[in-house]
Amino acid sequence: MKLLVKTVFDGSNFCGFQAQPGRRSVQGELTERFGELFGFPVTVTGCSRTDSGVHALGYCLAIAPTAPCDGSWCAIPTSKFCAAANTALPSDIAAVAAAEMPDEFHPRYSAVKKEYIYKICDSPVLSPFVRGRAMHFKRRISDSALLNMKKAAALFEGTHDFTSFMAKGSKITDPVRTVYSTDVKRDSDGLVCFTVSADGFLYNMVRIMAGTLLRVASGKVDCGEITEIINSRRRESAGETAAPYGLYLNEVTYPFDIRWNVDG
Amino acid sequence: MKLLVKTVFDGSNFCGFQAQPGRRSVQGELTERFGELFGFPVTVTGCSRTDSGVHALGYCLAIAPTAPCDGSWCAIPTSKFCAAANTALPSDIAAVAAAEMPDEFHPRYSAVKKEYIYKICDSPVLSPFVRGRAMHFKRRISDSALLNMKKAAALFEGTHDFTSFMAKGSKITDPVRTVYSTDVKRDSDGLVCFTVSADGFLYNMVRIMAGTLLRVASGKVDCGEITEIINSRRRESAGETAAPYGLYLNEVTYPFDIRWNVDG
Repeated sequence: MKLLVKTVFDGSNFCGFQAQPGRRSVQGELTERFGELFGFPVTVTGCSRTDSGVHALGYCLAIAPTAPCDGSWCAIPTSKFCAAANTALPSDIAAVAAAEMPDEFHPRYSAVKKEYIYKICDSPVLSPFVRGRAMHFKRRISDSALLNMKKAAALFEGTHDFTSFMAKGSKITDPVRTVYSTDVKRDSDGLVCFTVSADGFLYNMVRIMAGTLLRVASGKVDCGEITEIINSRRRESAGETAAPYGLYLNEVTYPFDIRWNVDG
Repeated sequence: MKLLVKTVFDGSNFCGFQAQPGRRSVQGELTERFGELFGFPVTVTGCSRTDSGVHALGYCLAIAPTAPCDGSWCAIPTSKFCAAANTALPSDIAAVAAAEMPDEFHPRYSAVKKEYIYKICDSPVLSPFVRGRAMHFKRRISDSALLNMKKAAALFEGTHDFTSFMAKGSKITDPVRTVYSTDVKRDSDGLVCFTVSADGFLYNMVRIMAGTLLRVASGKVDCGEITEIINSRRRESAGETAAPYGLYLNEVTYPFDIRWNVDG
């Protein structure tokens, strides 16, 4: 048995999800805290590598004892797990749901869809309450520019070679991904939000998409040009890699029903 | 001439507005930063003392040279002031609007109305993105409980002796205040928000009101009892003083039109 846990984290003070020597990572913190909670070493496996500063609203990870053991290693009932976990976790990570999964489950390889949100604050003054939680684009994005961004984003949908939207130097050999849905809208807090879901993402893909959409907002790129940028398969055709702190991993989908326990 | 500046600040890392020796205050930071910006010592006067952890969405303060000078001391055009100020301010304070005011203006004594918002997160798990920015009330507040809070809050309206809602040991001699408006509703982020405006507030008044409304939410106090609590003029009758980090100074009103310059 593995324990699947859905978490929310503020990525500001982490070097990313993955453990790195001498740096504070989400994986490192969770491995230590859950090890203390259970009283024996555990291995924490994530659904995605995230960069330093990147946030999560629904990051899925699995916990299992590091040493081989039988199925009943978790003394805490799954229905009470989040409440117990939240007493042990640091203030920038919260457990929001938990479920029991079979041993063969892997939070990354079992995932069939991920959804990211990229948040942009387009007011001249950046509120201290938004700093580090959205990218600051100093010019106001008009309703028509927002509509252009939405039209441009829609052109990402479908199965494409996304080499133009992959960080240079990536070791990925197959740059083909299927984007299922996109949206660009202003949320209730006034932030411009680009939402994208796909079967998987290349390194920096959402941030390069966001940077390219901001070129559309600025009128530097016509929304119809997105198709040409994709087809060029050249990183130089796309826009800048937008700042990490605008990015949120929102949701991970698995191809089976998960009996989530939500308690607190 | 005095310069009136409207600011937003995250109060988490301040001891409050007022300067205190050896502690980081909003007034202390602004006095230092604006002094550097202008190149001569300035005096910064606030519209209100706020406690450590209390936030502001529209805090008004006045800047004037500490030494006597003529009216044209500010070399920065008021229309460009916020942009200039924001390059000099720390990341947890932002200037959002500026206006020129006559010497006799005082941001505190000239104010005729202030509005505060008290934010409550009523989900079992506190999101890292809400921590320090709303009070955590671990039980879900139902729609009917929310309506009871709203009815209870409405009983604060009018001119009353608010001794029951004043921190013990306050030196204020006249505890009569006029509450102009109240509201309790769930905002777009899902937080329960208590909004109250008055001609002035006693020490901890909004936080004690919020603590009392949470007793109404819990069913410990009937909404009609608010009038009895006010009339008792005993601090013990009211609820706990709710945590400072749920409180936001939202708006200050002056009895004249202010020509605000908003630029960024």
